[in-house]
Amino acid sequence: MKSLLSAFAVLALFFTPAVYAQQPTPPSPDDVRKVAPALEAYRQARLFDDLWKRPELSARDRSLVTIAALIARNQTIELPFYVERALDSGVKPAEISEAIVHLNFYAGSSNAMAAVAAAKDVFARRGITPAQLPAAAPPKLPLDEKGEADRAQRVGQQFGAVSPGLVHYTTDILFRDLWLRPDFAPRDRSLVTVSALVANGQVGQIPYHLGRAMDNGLTQSQAGEVLTQLAFYAGWPASFSAIPVFKDVFEKRPK
Amino acid sequence: MKSLLSAFAVLALFFTPAVYAQQPTPPSPDDVRKVAPALEAYRQARLFDDLWKRPELSARDRSLVTIAALIARNQTIELPFYVERALDSGVKPAEISEAIVHLNFYAGSSNAMAAVAAAKDVFARRGITPAQLPAAAPPKLPLDEKGEADRAQRVGQQFGAVSPGLVHYTTDILFRDLWLRPDFAPRDRSLVTVSALVANGQVGQIPYHLGRAMDNGLTQSQAGEVLTQLAFYAGWPASFSAIPVFKDVFEKRPK
Amino acid sequence: MKSLLSAFAVLALFFTPAVYAQQPTPPSPDDVRKVAPALEAYRQARLFDDLWKRPELSARDRSLVTIAALIARNQTIELPFYVERALDSGVKPAEISEAIVHLNFYAGSSNAMAAVAAAKDVFARRGITPAQLPAAAPPKLPLDEKGEADRAQRVGQQFGAVSPGLVHYTTDILFRDLWLRPDFAPRDRSLVTVSALVANGQVGQIPYHLGRAMDNGLTQSQAGEVLTQLAFYAGWPASFSAIPVFKDVFEKRPK
Repeated sequence: MKSLLSAFAVLALFFTPAVYAQQPTPPSPDDVRKVAPALEAYRQARLFDDLWKRPELSARDRSLVTIAALIARNQTIELPFYVERALDSGVKPAEISEAIVHLNFYAGSSNAMAAVAAAKDVFARRGITPAQLPAAAPPKLPLDEKGEADRAQRVGQQFGAVSPGLVHYTTDILFRDLWLRPDFAPRDRSLVTVSALVANGQVGQIPYHLGRAMDNGLTQSQAGEVLTQLAFYAGWPASFSAIPVFKDVFEKRPK
Repeated sequence: MKSLLSAFAVLALFFTPAVYAQQPTPPSPDDVRKVAPALEAYRQARLFDDLWKRPELSARDRSLVTIAALIARNQTIELPFYVERALDSGVKPAEISEAIVHLNFYAGSSNAMAAVAAAKDVFARRGITPAQLPAAAPPKLPLDEKGEADRAQRVGQQFGAVSPGLVHYTTDILFRDLWLRPDFAPRDRSLVTVSALVANGQVGQIPYHLGRAMDNGLTQSQAGEVLTQLAFYAGWPASFSAIPVFKDVFEKRPK
Repeated sequence: MKSLLSAFAVLALFFTPAVYAQQPTPPSPDDVRKVAPALEAYRQARLFDDLWKRPELSARDRSLVTIAALIARNQTIELPFYVERALDSGVKPAEISEAIVHLNFYAGSSNAMAAVAAAKDVFARRGITPAQLPAAAPPKLPLDEKGEADRAQRVGQQFGAVSPGLVHYTTDILFRDLWLRPDFAPRDRSLVTVSALVANGQVGQIPYHLGRAMDNGLTQSQAGEVLTQLAFYAGWPASFSAIPVFKDVFEKRPK
């Protein structure tokens, strides 16, 4: 019986890591070198020792941009790594939680669920408890009633007859609820929204949201550097498709 | 020996779920609450108790739209859940099978293979047998020869010299074969096609396929609600990029 | 004790494959038939026995196009299968390695990492050693200084003020480094780049890169057939969104 128990212990050692690793494990630096030595070299020299240290955008903001891109494109393999990095860079657990809730609407329901699946083990490992997370329905930030009424009227006139449901929920859930949740600053919601739009090639939605982001405090220099960060995480074409739109938004803003 | 067998039973209990779950397991409501309590609240209040119950589109159609979006965007984490929901909402196994075959062409080969990987356990659990599935090559629906000849001539003139292979297979596989398979109504093929186009941001292909969908019986009100459903499952930007195109198609249709 | 050991052996048989299969296992032909008999029939008759044998593009080039599409769209379920196929079709391990490095920049960092995760077991199984892979920083191909200076000046004038970082890295990493790595021909880099652009719907970036591809030796007939191949692997809408852009590029090239 004793040998049976020790056999169990051995079995546990063998099987546990893989069995509980329901998330795919990202390749280690050694794994990367076995397929593409240059990739590991670029990652170290150009990504972590270069891009992430550029002063145009804080490591905190870069973390939000990166997480938004990964969630928007449903890429979970490195998401735990970047959630850890975000926490280490000063993003609060409550902010990561809200970023996922926000992207539930700006990227899609299953993107958010896959993000939860990727983040939950990190949260557990760090001992993050529900007490540190935003409530389901906290008191809301004050609403700019005039601005929101204008937006709702404009969208309603354009599209109310085409998809009444979409217009209804845009007002009801997004602008009178989600954007007013207090544990994630409007500027950060904008940062995450714009990042998701660029990452998914939804350039038609950039003008409104980039303008809103800059109204919410994102500077032009930061916005430009968001495209730099996203080139590495969503691919060069995504940033190059967005850059003429950014240029146009910058030029048309009242100085 | 008895204790060995019972030990096996214990082991089986511990290891089986994860070991056989080659598909990533979606987070439980409790998991979601450990990362984002608001997300679980929104899912219940706005998704399942609200959106899915709107009368503009049946739960059956919503299931097809949702499955199409998930397959088109290669999101498998919740696909088993929504395949179950589809079956519970009156979508026939044969129709789910055909939706996957259809999206093999409208979303890509590996999207279909990932969908098979996600659906096969659901089919097995429900005892769905090959006898309930469409044959590989069943007798075809009648073809609108004139309409198809016009389409083929128009596309051939425009693009025949650019990519002869693409033009050839479009006629040969899609319009003279796939669309005529009898176990999935043309209206449902259109529903799934349009959903995939919106979900993947392929707005340039919407006018042709939305017109075809309406020719096949999709009403304007249903089409508008497809955008509402897709906002939740492919993200708001996907629906907002598509809505002006839908508007244009609606306005240009002969009344 | 003997029975305990044999029990272990049995357990190992049962648990090992799944436990070590951190990559999702693609469905077998039998699995496919249990969900969609037509899908397996199409795969055999139209994909492997038809498309792949068309003379307009070699199996080697089709492999590169297919792998590029799968990596660009982050689809790993069949990637090991197509990496094997690529190796069997004459793509060198060094070329697969460089394709992943290339797509690290043209599709995104996590796409490359997911590709490494999918390729590493194939490389291990084939006994491919680091000695067969390109060095991290090999001597570069000669640069067309004039052409690159023109490109850099044009992009700098247009976008240098919008995102200085993006413009900087485009010159520094992409055109003065990545494209000059010697173990993957410029024509093949172009093939992979154009495939990723089509697969991800980044049509705005096609004119520059398709022109470059043809400058690098891709013929018009091959380029057209790339769209045929991609219809099957990235979906018909991706190829149909790209075909008018290809047409325009073909027509505007000096004869």
